[in-house]
Amino acid sequence: MGATVLVPWEQNRENAPATVTAEVYDGTGEPPADLSDVEFYVVPYAKPGTAELMRRMPRLRAAQLLTAGYEHAIGHLPDGVGLYNGRGLHDASTAEHALALMLSAQRDMPQWAVEQQDHVWNPHYTRSLADSRVLIVGYGSIGAAIEDRLTPFETEVVRLARSARPEQDVHGIDALHRLLPGVDIVVVVAPHTPETEGLIGAAELALLADDSLVVNVGRGPIVDTAALVAEKGRIRAALDVTDPEPLPADHPLWEVPGVTITPHIAGGSATFYPRARRFVDDQLRRWNAGEQLANKVR
Amino acid sequence: MGATVLVPWEQNRENAPATVTAEVYDGTGEPPADLSDVEFYVVPYAKPGTAELMRRMPRLRAAQLLTAGYEHAIGHLPDGVGLYNGRGLHDASTAEHALALMLSAQRDMPQWAVEQQDHVWNPHYTRSLADSRVLIVGYGSIGAAIEDRLTPFETEVVRLARSARPEQDVHGIDALHRLLPGVDIVVVVAPHTPETEGLIGAAELALLADDSLVVNVGRGPIVDTAALVAEKGRIRAALDVTDPEPLPADHPLWEVPGVTITPHIAGGSATFYPRARRFVDDQLRRWNAGEQLANKVR
Repeated sequence: MGATVLVPWEQNRENAPATVTAEVYDGTGEPPADLSDVEFYVVPYAKPGTAELMRRMPRLRAAQLLTAGYEHAIGHLPDGVGLYNGRGLHDASTAEHALALMLSAQRDMPQWAVEQQDHVWNPHYTRSLADSRVLIVGYGSIGAAIEDRLTPFETEVVRLARSARPEQDVHGIDALHRLLPGVDIVVVVAPHTPETEGLIGAAELALLADDSLVVNVGRGPIVDTAALVAEKGRIRAALDVTDPEPLPADHPLWEVPGVTITPHIAGGSATFYPRARRFVDDQLRRWNAGEQLANKVR
Repeated sequence: MGATVLVPWEQNRENAPATVTAEVYDGTGEPPADLSDVEFYVVPYAKPGTAELMRRMPRLRAAQLLTAGYEHAIGHLPDGVGLYNGRGLHDASTAEHALALMLSAQRDMPQWAVEQQDHVWNPHYTRSLADSRVLIVGYGSIGAAIEDRLTPFETEVVRLARSARPEQDVHGIDALHRLLPGVDIVVVVAPHTPETEGLIGAAELALLADDSLVVNVGRGPIVDTAALVAEKGRIRAALDVTDPEPLPADHPLWEVPGVTITPHIAGGSATFYPRARRFVDDQLRRWNAGEQLANKVR
């Protein structure tokens, strides 16, 4: 008899309820030859080609992704199979990187790294994160995780989302232009939708004070790259996502003064794995108990 | 009539009580010609040669430093003059930089900075700060400020100081060797004393697990530089202070893999200034009211 559930980590196999036949496939090397008994498939994280395996699972009832996005899996999802995503698993990792980007930019860490290469000890005093007013654009679970980490740094956080939620002190998108002139740092963590594309463009950057910092850990197209380049360093930026992405070697954004780039690695740090393994354990337990699984998207 | 108090910032002159004759000297350019009436002198921050001016102030009764260290001023202090230091003013700035160093090291920010120079987009997933156990060596006010900033990152903090304080869950120095094997990050924030010199040496580094991170925002000589170099990258380090300091261009520490260096700039970021100005305002108010000044060291 083949496996009933196919999981990416040995921990999940070990922790699986006794009545569940679990097998491990981590997305590297050949998948198990016989997938015909798999009813619950946890698609390995960041392993291209692994969502397609659903087509070889005639008994499949549930597919669990470890990403928040699920568009890449829809085309391979057989009719009648439930699809579950990894919403929340990347929050801590992404929020942590947002702080790394902010602190790195305020404290001139890229400059120190380059000067270290040249063996140069040339101190100057830097900006700080303390006393900054930080606008979080796209205030949801990741935005709240960023706020949690910002608060002890003696910052003031301003919250903005698509719709105002006055009871949570969250401004609506219509307040964006009014808020921009009064903040030191803008952190973009919104999803990419037709509404958010180009949300931070030339008009919005023009509203920011000189030397403000734009951080993007959401999606590249939310910030208008050409407009940012045109600022020529008047506005600083720390970007984990860009548009286009990957950023071509000959793109001018690489060399704009005050712009720091990391290659879309916010969500996948070591922070992610223990949280993801625990989540899969929990989903297996719910599966075995006949409970509703968490994070259903289809 | 000359000034009764000499302060470094215009804000302090403006906020001075009406009965106080205040003059501003920020430490750049020539000092006021007549210093004979100065009774309270706030020595400008990080301006060499400004402590010596005390010798030209025959009516001086109190000298206020903006640094925590005061050894550099003792030799210029006339008999009978009270000396006050800047203890606490640098806590937020130093704690913030400790987090910048930790996050930068865990998230490979120096590598991204160098790859940006080469226009290289080459993602890999990194370590995280989350789930780390962090030992703070020299747990005092800055250590507590570091802990405040670490807590929301889902870390575990272990506290160590010269003497155990069980009621605050602070271990004594005798616990150091027992604690080192179980931590991921060691943050050194102790003062430089005969007891702390070389405190983190070859024996202590040997007790740390592979890939552990040593952060130093205290004083350079607390970490044995030769022992750190000899680890050849088995232990990573993020150092704002070094021994010797400044680090000579031909020193091998610059090129040890996994070692990040910033040139002793932790305490003096923009974070410091509003706090320092407010503190001077408060001291002037106390002075005028005949109250005891804060932070007396002599």
